[in-house]
Amino acid sequence: MTDPLTRPVRRSVWWGWGDPAEAHPLPAAGWAALRDELGVPAEPPVPPVDLADVRLPSSALPAGARAALEDVVGAAFVTSERLDRVEHARGKSYPDLRRLRDGDAGTAPDAVVLPGSADEVGAVLRVCAEHDVAVVPFGGGTSVVGGVTPDRGTHRAVVSLDLRRLTGLVRVDTVSRTATFRAGTRGPDAEAALRPHGLTLGHYPQSHQQATIGGYVATRSAGQASTGYGRVDDLVLGARLETPTGTFEPGGRSPASAAGPGLLDLVVGSEGALGVVTEATLAVHPVPAATAHACVAFGSFADAVDALRGLVQDLGRGAVPEVCRLSDAEETRLQLTLAGRRGAALRRWLAARGAAEPCLLVLVWEGPSERAVRRRQRECLALLRSRGAHRLPASVARSWQAGRFAAPYLRDELMSRGVLVDTLETATTWDRLLPLHDRVRTALLRSLTGSGAPAIVQCHVSHVYPTGASLYLTFVTREEADPVAQWSRAKSAASEAISQGGGTITHHHAVGTDHLPWLEHEIGAVGARLLRAVRGELDPSGVMNPGTLVPAAVAAERV
Amino acid sequence: MTDPLTRPVRRSVWWGWGDPAEAHPLPAAGWAALRDELGVPAEPPVPPVDLADVRLPSSALPAGARAALEDVVGAAFVTSERLDRVEHARGKSYPDLRRLRDGDAGTAPDAVVLPGSADEVGAVLRVCAEHDVAVVPFGGGTSVVGGVTPDRGTHRAVVSLDLRRLTGLVRVDTVSRTATFRAGTRGPDAEAALRPHGLTLGHYPQSHQQATIGGYVATRSAGQASTGYGRVDDLVLGARLETPTGTFEPGGRSPASAAGPGLLDLVVGSEGALGVVTEATLAVHPVPAATAHACVAFGSFADAVDALRGLVQDLGRGAVPEVCRLSDAEETRLQLTLAGRRGAALRRWLAARGAAEPCLLVLVWEGPSERAVRRRQRECLALLRSRGAHRLPASVARSWQAGRFAAPYLRDELMSRGVLVDTLETATTWDRLLPLHDRVRTALLRSLTGSGAPAIVQCHVSHVYPTGASLYLTFVTREEADPVAQWSRAKSAASEAISQGGGTITHHHAVGTDHLPWLEHEIGAVGARLLRAVRGELDPSGVMNPGTLVPAAVAAERV
Repeated sequence: MTDPLTRPVRRSVWWGWGDPAEAHPLPAAGWAALRDELGVPAEPPVPPVDLADVRLPSSALPAGARAALEDVVGAAFVTSERLDRVEHARGKSYPDLRRLRDGDAGTAPDAVVLPGSADEVGAVLRVCAEHDVAVVPFGGGTSVVGGVTPDRGTHRAVVSLDLRRLTGLVRVDTVSRTATFRAGTRGPDAEAALRPHGLTLGHYPQSHQQATIGGYVATRSAGQASTGYGRVDDLVLGARLETPTGTFEPGGRSPASAAGPGLLDLVVGSEGALGVVTEATLAVHPVPAATAHACVAFGSFADAVDALRGLVQDLGRGAVPEVCRLSDAEETRLQLTLAGRRGAALRRWLAARGAAEPCLLVLVWEGPSERAVRRRQRECLALLRSRGAHRLPASVARSWQAGRFAAPYLRDELMSRGVLVDTLETATTWDRLLPLHDRVRTALLRSLTGSGAPAIVQCHVSHVYPTGASLYLTFVTREEADPVAQWSRAKSAASEAISQGGGTITHHHAVGTDHLPWLEHEIGAVGARLLRAVRGELDPSGVMNPGTLVPAAVAAERV
Repeated sequence: MTDPLTRPVRRSVWWGWGDPAEAHPLPAAGWAALRDELGVPAEPPVPPVDLADVRLPSSALPAGARAALEDVVGAAFVTSERLDRVEHARGKSYPDLRRLRDGDAGTAPDAVVLPGSADEVGAVLRVCAEHDVAVVPFGGGTSVVGGVTPDRGTHRAVVSLDLRRLTGLVRVDTVSRTATFRAGTRGPDAEAALRPHGLTLGHYPQSHQQATIGGYVATRSAGQASTGYGRVDDLVLGARLETPTGTFEPGGRSPASAAGPGLLDLVVGSEGALGVVTEATLAVHPVPAATAHACVAFGSFADAVDALRGLVQDLGRGAVPEVCRLSDAEETRLQLTLAGRRGAALRRWLAARGAAEPCLLVLVWEGPSERAVRRRQRECLALLRSRGAHRLPASVARSWQAGRFAAPYLRDELMSRGVLVDTLETATTWDRLLPLHDRVRTALLRSLTGSGAPAIVQCHVSHVYPTGASLYLTFVTREEADPVAQWSRAKSAASEAISQGGGTITHHHAVGTDHLPWLEHEIGAVGARLLRAVRGELDPSGVMNPGTLVPAAVAAERV
């Protein structure tokens, strides 16, 4: 059997996710059930427009800038071909794909530049600064927050800097268990390079098949198993950042240091607005020899959250599963509905045990031996049972794992059928988790159902920490006449609820442009000044990814 | 029995550590053995000079500045009394104490200011900026790197800002397991405040009895049990930093976030050079219900390092002890020597088993139950035995723990007897650990024994991580005519060896002034520019702790 973590998948189509041949369409009964819930008419799917019909502004890259860029990377690696520009016009959020499917590539870059080395990246940035050309780093292109959408801002033109030629494992240190990758290495390629050493990164976001190491670092990402293996900010030991004013290489000497503020932490989460991550050194782990799965159900989300908190606070670091994924009642309901007869049987079984609105918790343990993994599993399940968990077949957890990279394909299918579907996420401390869950759900439902249309808002806890946890929400409704405006209202309502409810505006999706209006409330006026000061130092001409990450100074403030 | 973690100790005497009544002088036999090794003449101890004889410059604080400071904090809280100024003249490094014992308080601040609230701290900083007065934050005053030594730089005067009035637990969240402290809260007081909630910080540096929460955050500290509980950078969720240009309060919303670069990580390790930490929110842990100790010995440092690496890399997060402390052959030798007959018996027993130059490893596990702790202990000891460990009595580990806050008192005693003694530390990845150990030891020995005097250079690994570990070195020799110059040569030689050998210049002592010459080699020219940019934004007049942390710009560079 091919390892799903190392199997390469072709780069995403311009109008959607990955390789459409990999999609597993919803079974007819599932689609019928969803269609009923949302009141979507039964019409044939609408495909995206033809590439030739996509509306694209003409390239505004000045000839002098193009020539200078070609001098750095070679003429073959500066392209303004239609497909290249459309592929780099946007990321993969719902509004990105809605616009592209409808033929709107108004945000396409004036050119795509493909440097062949970190030094070439640095030279490209200097050329861009000199020629007043904005530059947007592009790794896997999977941003769902507008992070790779070109915006020339006040500059003369904008290019997308694609890192696909900067790939591969630079070195692996099997003694210290670290690996250094070039930034453009995609998830499956990184795993495939580590396998001969018996190692894995343990970092598998839903975007794994497309996303890159550089993207992980630049967006401060978390993977589905980050409860066990750590977020990328836990894994990263060192990085190389090319900026318009020099190369920055923080870290790399030691697993920890007291040598002043955490400068590496300025690179992690820099989102292409401070420079381009071209290389990163990460902690790696032995490929697990054993895996155990479990699924349990609770009678309420509050009980389940309490039990999950007990798991991470009271069992000690060793027992906590690599993956904990707790669905709220609505997500569980929909999951059981889409599972057809098997789901209905589970629901009846749980109802008979008093869990009329059950919440499912999926758990995965990975480790060096069957014995070690089973012992941790026993410990966890004993605690969960003592807090009211009902044990369900482990196959539920295995099914989740088997399909864990598939959701973006399902979104493409739903969009073809007139369904608005997107996700958003946050994290907060345990004391605020339930009120925040309620607040964000309510805000989304109020926004989406304002016009009387039905909507589904479901949520799961995807990452747990001793002091808090994340919330990951999916919202689904039928598209109205202006679906992007419809989405924008819902996104704003949810972001405002998160911001006011004490959550972080993003736990693992990054800031991009979509979360920028809420960033300053989170980091304060001084935090915003610091971001501008750091950007001003590294990129005084402001060509790096304009419009993302860095809050603009208001007129009254010193800049 | 009083809990040694909550028992308060009076503030340090001006010429040395803590309360001299708490010291346990070396037994006569131990001192005789050490004296022999070092060739120190048997003379009576030399006490520090009388306070009245300490040389102190007259206070240069302009009357206008003093009046403005008094307006903020009240006249009673701006003092230029002799004792106050001498107590704030230096930290607690060897050269600090050598100079003070000899009556040199030339670095005393022009006044000591004691604000009563975070808002008063902010106001003091604005007054200082306005009146061109440098300001040095002072928590427990335990810096061993020159971090609290006043230096007016280019300014008109310098004050020490003592945080002793900002104390106490602000709030505790028992659901999320976090606690918020005012910055001046000292280690034992923080623990005492947490005990009624059944909680502990788990952060016990050797300076625990004197050091403060704000100092932990400002110096990015690690405690003796940080292998288990995490460094302060792992524990901190949020902080409040007063700066001359505003209040910065990053973090506090969530255990993790992808909302851009880690701005909280600019506060952690800011060393009073970017502002004053006035409050911090930290993760806390249940007080352990059970503790287990063990001590094992290895036949060589290389074998022991390999085994320790196996412990942290192969056993999984759960089994690794809260404390791992591995002494090299020289440290073990001296430890056994000072332990007298008991040490000699242990040495013979180990020699009979082929360990002629043994290395001792002390281990402490803490946890929620005897059963859980014992199981982890069994797992660890099984692995260590399989790698050649000889089991020694656990009392060796208990003795270490009982005396773990005592070393600074011993230093005072040795200094009174003409012995130069200091410590320094670094960390690196596992692949570089043994070469770095060798390189730093050699550099220190070469520097110290250049004049023909004997010297002891011993080392232990004090903190372990999956990708590397720390090295903590102690060096001892007899004082020459100019002991501060003698120390300075040794410190420089060691720092150069660390820097060239791929270690970080400091794992948990911070940068201060002593490590500053080596910082730019570690963070690079761009890193130094970033520190200056951040300082320039928060403290444009440069009054915060001049001469520490931030590398000066060279003339050729843009600033």
